[in-house]
Amino acid sequence: MKKLLHLISGFIAVGVAAAPVMAGYESYEAFAETDGYALFTVNNLWILLSAALVFIMHLGFSTLEAGLCQQKNTVNILFKNVFIISMGLLTYAFWGFNAMYPGFAEDSAGIFAMGSWFGVSNDDVSLMTDEYASYTWWTDFIFQGMFAATAATIVSGAVAERVKLSSFMIFVTILVMFAYPMAGSWKWGGGWLDAKGFYDFAGSSIVHAFGGFAALASVLLLGPRKGKYTKDGKIKPILGHSMPLATIGVFLLFLGWFGFNGGSVLSADPLLVSYVFCTTGLAAASGAIGAILVSWIVLKKPDLSMALNGILAGLVGITAGADVIGMGSSIIVGLIAGALVVFAILFFDKIKVDDPVGAISVHGVCGIWGTLAVGIFSADFSVGIQLLGTLTYAIFAFVFSFAVFGLIKAVMGIRVSAEEEFEGLDVGEHGQEAYPDFSVTSR
Amino acid sequence: MKKLLHLISGFIAVGVAAAPVMAGYESYEAFAETDGYALFTVNNLWILLSAALVFIMHLGFSTLEAGLCQQKNTVNILFKNVFIISMGLLTYAFWGFNAMYPGFAEDSAGIFAMGSWFGVSNDDVSLMTDEYASYTWWTDFIFQGMFAATAATIVSGAVAERVKLSSFMIFVTILVMFAYPMAGSWKWGGGWLDAKGFYDFAGSSIVHAFGGFAALASVLLLGPRKGKYTKDGKIKPILGHSMPLATIGVFLLFLGWFGFNGGSVLSADPLLVSYVFCTTGLAAASGAIGAILVSWIVLKKPDLSMALNGILAGLVGITAGADVIGMGSSIIVGLIAGALVVFAILFFDKIKVDDPVGAISVHGVCGIWGTLAVGIFSADFSVGIQLLGTLTYAIFAFVFSFAVFGLIKAVMGIRVSAEEEFEGLDVGEHGQEAYPDFSVTSR
Amino acid sequence: MKKLLHLISGFIAVGVAAAPVMAGYESYEAFAETDGYALFTVNNLWILLSAALVFIMHLGFSTLEAGLCQQKNTVNILFKNVFIISMGLLTYAFWGFNAMYPGFAEDSAGIFAMGSWFGVSNDDVSLMTDEYASYTWWTDFIFQGMFAATAATIVSGAVAERVKLSSFMIFVTILVMFAYPMAGSWKWGGGWLDAKGFYDFAGSSIVHAFGGFAALASVLLLGPRKGKYTKDGKIKPILGHSMPLATIGVFLLFLGWFGFNGGSVLSADPLLVSYVFCTTGLAAASGAIGAILVSWIVLKKPDLSMALNGILAGLVGITAGADVIGMGSSIIVGLIAGALVVFAILFFDKIKVDDPVGAISVHGVCGIWGTLAVGIFSADFSVGIQLLGTLTYAIFAFVFSFAVFGLIKAVMGIRVSAEEEFEGLDVGEHGQEAYPDFSVTSR
Repeated sequence: MKKLLHLISGFIAVGVAAAPVMAGYESYEAFAETDGYALFTVNNLWILLSAALVFIMHLGFSTLEAGLCQQKNTVNILFKNVFIISMGLLTYAFWGFNAMYPGFAEDSAGIFAMGSWFGVSNDDVSLMTDEYASYTWWTDFIFQGMFAATAATIVSGAVAERVKLSSFMIFVTILVMFAYPMAGSWKWGGGWLDAKGFYDFAGSSIVHAFGGFAALASVLLLGPRKGKYTKDGKIKPILGHSMPLATIGVFLLFLGWFGFNGGSVLSADPLLVSYVFCTTGLAAASGAIGAILVSWIVLKKPDLSMALNGILAGLVGITAGADVIGMGSSIIVGLIAGALVVFAILFFDKIKVDDPVGAISVHGVCGIWGTLAVGIFSADFSVGIQLLGTLTYAIFAFVFSFAVFGLIKAVMGIRVSAEEEFEGLDVGEHGQEAYPDFSVTSR
Repeated sequence: MKKLLHLISGFIAVGVAAAPVMAGYESYEAFAETDGYALFTVNNLWILLSAALVFIMHLGFSTLEAGLCQQKNTVNILFKNVFIISMGLLTYAFWGFNAMYPGFAEDSAGIFAMGSWFGVSNDDVSLMTDEYASYTWWTDFIFQGMFAATAATIVSGAVAERVKLSSFMIFVTILVMFAYPMAGSWKWGGGWLDAKGFYDFAGSSIVHAFGGFAALASVLLLGPRKGKYTKDGKIKPILGHSMPLATIGVFLLFLGWFGFNGGSVLSADPLLVSYVFCTTGLAAASGAIGAILVSWIVLKKPDLSMALNGILAGLVGITAGADVIGMGSSIIVGLIAGALVVFAILFFDKIKVDDPVGAISVHGVCGIWGTLAVGIFSADFSVGIQLLGTLTYAIFAFVFSFAVFGLIKAVMGIRVSAEEEFEGLDVGEHGQEAYPDFSVTSR
Repeated sequence: MKKLLHLISGFIAVGVAAAPVMAGYESYEAFAETDGYALFTVNNLWILLSAALVFIMHLGFSTLEAGLCQQKNTVNILFKNVFIISMGLLTYAFWGFNAMYPGFAEDSAGIFAMGSWFGVSNDDVSLMTDEYASYTWWTDFIFQGMFAATAATIVSGAVAERVKLSSFMIFVTILVMFAYPMAGSWKWGGGWLDAKGFYDFAGSSIVHAFGGFAALASVLLLGPRKGKYTKDGKIKPILGHSMPLATIGVFLLFLGWFGFNGGSVLSADPLLVSYVFCTTGLAAASGAIGAILVSWIVLKKPDLSMALNGILAGLVGITAGADVIGMGSSIIVGLIAGALVVFAILFFDKIKVDDPVGAISVHGVCGIWGTLAVGIFSADFSVGIQLLGTLTYAIFAFVFSFAVFGLIKAVMGIRVSAEEEFEGLDVGEHGQEAYPDFSVTSR
């Protein structure tokens, strides 16, 4: 029995006991005796901590999306987020990691990359190479795996309150397993966009615009929630059920972003990491102020949802250039993002693109803005190339999602029945209520 | 007055000003000038951060348990958790720490160890010895103190909604002060189980099976909640009152586990810590998928509570072997744990062991599974010894708890009155409601 | 267009590309090659992580204050906290940072310091000087900026449920921009109180007593909530609407305090940081136990709100001396703080100072206690000087707030109408409900 289990797990397992093949060192033990080991250890620790910080963003997304939706769909939203982080990590292990960081062959066009099981075999463990000079192979995996799941999570908020669970699960699994790593490889894997001089520090385009435009395609296929747009052309607001949950979500996302951006330095370099902390914090702060000002003027009252989305807008906006944009400029980038997100949310609502949490505006629109801002505020990069890159990600995510989710729609449907939508997906999909002890108002 | 206060606090106090006696160094200042100081500082920092991460698990337990219970017992559950972390740290200072890491005398059988105040006196401060090569004495205390309180917290969920507060407070104080450190010393203090070659990396048995079987004994003494099992043999589900709270709890526990397991490396060794992050993350992810699949098949609908418990099951399962089990195997360990926890919860419900949050299944059953998994998936350890060790912890926790909680039952009672149970412990024990502004449904 | 944007942002921006002028090194690159670089990197990393931990305290304050107030004012409280962290960071960038750490001229009395934009110009970037030996300029800013916003947040809880939003926003902006940095400079900027030998490690006075007495002045100007004190002299409790939110808040504040105090070591010194973690954790734990005991005796039942405030009281109490007070003494300091806070809350209620969250007691009273405790429990400091210092902060914060908030009161009013107060500030100030789906009880 034990032998059998060893055999089974042996195919895909590698023990830590295996002596890692070190680039330029005889062994790990020999490396640990060198002067560089302490610095390597700090660098590695910071990336691991960043992975933990990005992980907590998934709790942030969960509570933000749950808070901004109706109580009758709360269990469903939470379930989707639990599923995405779990499936995201597993698919990244089985395929995504090695697809995203492929080391394209020299004669490759840098477009298509194949994935494989991330756990290298005992015979050629190469935990540290010259390329991964500041952290181990495992550190790289867990940090990037947390990123991968983020892209998929962005979609879940936009399609909330009416998407069919099984169809969504299939769609995001494909999205996070195949589409995200391939697109990511174009820049971060050293592919064709990297070769063109495109710059996206921590993923305004690669993660956020990607997720935002995948969300847009999904929403177009899905249609708006029942009752959102009346026959006589009016827009009926469908309010979120818990502003404390939404606020918890945004604060946790803000916290996690210190790892999302700060970890993207890929070392603990004191100058760069602290610089990124400052630009990130200031852009988030000015994003909130921007959204508060604009919403106060446009909507007559200072709106908490808008302030929260303003923080996220500032964060998405600074993500592409957090290490190259000046401190003062980071405030401007955030302010514009915060203003932009308010108008974008109102715009998409007007054209009847029903996005319950504003994901398309926050991640899609501000993702593009942030990528362009690198070209605008840093003399080292071209606005044209930045535009090419961000449109590439937006269009690819849109087309891929439209095709795959459209296929799923044709085969098995992507929307729950009108009765289930009215009753709520919690009971319909899960047979479970989020708050069984409380009197709730049916809407 | 000031002199008097100095005198009083002098008995138990030691100032940082005291020059620590260094193993092999003339002084701390001399040590700080050496080449090894930077590495020591990173290692120490990581264990401190791990302590903070394990601390946040206590918030995770608080919200998970509160979410899975009825609203009328929410204040009570939160209060118990506030009490446990506080009393746990204090008793660990006064007794537990020095009981758990006793440095058994050579002629000792490694079974009984006496505790004492952890703060060494000014005259023989030995902050770093060869044994504590990667962190200070204080770091060790705070990290292990956070662990100690965890074991007690596991019990609080299982006995929720009917336990008498004062009796519970006495019981967990004894459990965390005397039982946990003594049992822990058998392995982590270098006692008899350590001598036998038993392996439990971060405590699948020492913390989780211990807590789970202490919970089982408590629940057997306490009996099920009123109305849970009807006279005609039916099981009436008593639903938790807030799935967002429960989900917040599990995400925070997942986050904290990176410190629970990652910190158990006892240094910031880049290879080991990153390896442990990966096995931990993958087992949690596959635990969720395992529980989702099984609950979908068995219960017909994908259940959020089960998915959440699946994450915890995967985490508990990988805890004993996170540093020695292969990456592929960690996914298998998690999958099995996730499936196991669903069946265990249904089983305990069937035999009328009423555990509102599933603590016995998650921590007890999966704690045993995880300990055995080390023997199964790693060639370096024996299944037999692992079985011996895990049963030792399960039986000891069960017998100790049954005796002590049984004695408390005989002397002062352990259960609230039927009226108080019906009315809720919030009003009965605390005179306080959790949600005074909301209309709640009495059940 | 691009050129114009560069010009605009150029006034206040500095790029990371600028080669930092290093104290004693030719360049950053040269410094990075030295033996000291790894240690510098750890130290810097810890202060950055501490900034992230202090940041999460703002979520803690948000949920604590929201939980302890009525549901009809929830959106308003959350909005205020989102605004404060955002505006706090921005004003600290534009003025506060350089006002607080002014490097007073030698002939200055160390009282008045002028602020300025924190981002030094390209020509004289001095990222590390001998004074900032353990972290970069940017690290210093983000860590201290998070502190600054904390002082303002303390006020927001005390004035909750009746303060006019716009007036409050103006007041806290002035408070955090001008008053806090100036007062802080007296000690942490090397000003006159520093010269007198006053000690306040992490801000029992500089942050907490400051915030608590600013709150007291605001509450006196504002008056109690309608219905809190009846005409026949009775005190009517106005209960908080969500104890889970309050509990989440306190656990997050406890977590963040490891960074608040631990980061105030200003390096990752293993001995000092771990020492501070222990005193901080033990004082929080004994604060809870103290408050539980006293509330059980005085109020007949163990009160969760009091236990939570006991944790905070212990934390505020140990903050001034976390690095110089002995382990045993830290438990005594916490115990006394925990007892003190219960009596203080009852006292302020009796004299009709209406503080919905107990901020004046927790931060004001225990801030003074903690500052005095340094003189009492550490032989190196004088009780008299500690008293002088803490009264200075309390009185300055009180007088400044009374003057400025009083002026705002005269000019534009500081209180919402009786109708709006009855209806709730969520609808009145924001046109938004916190929980639209739930049936709520009007009070």
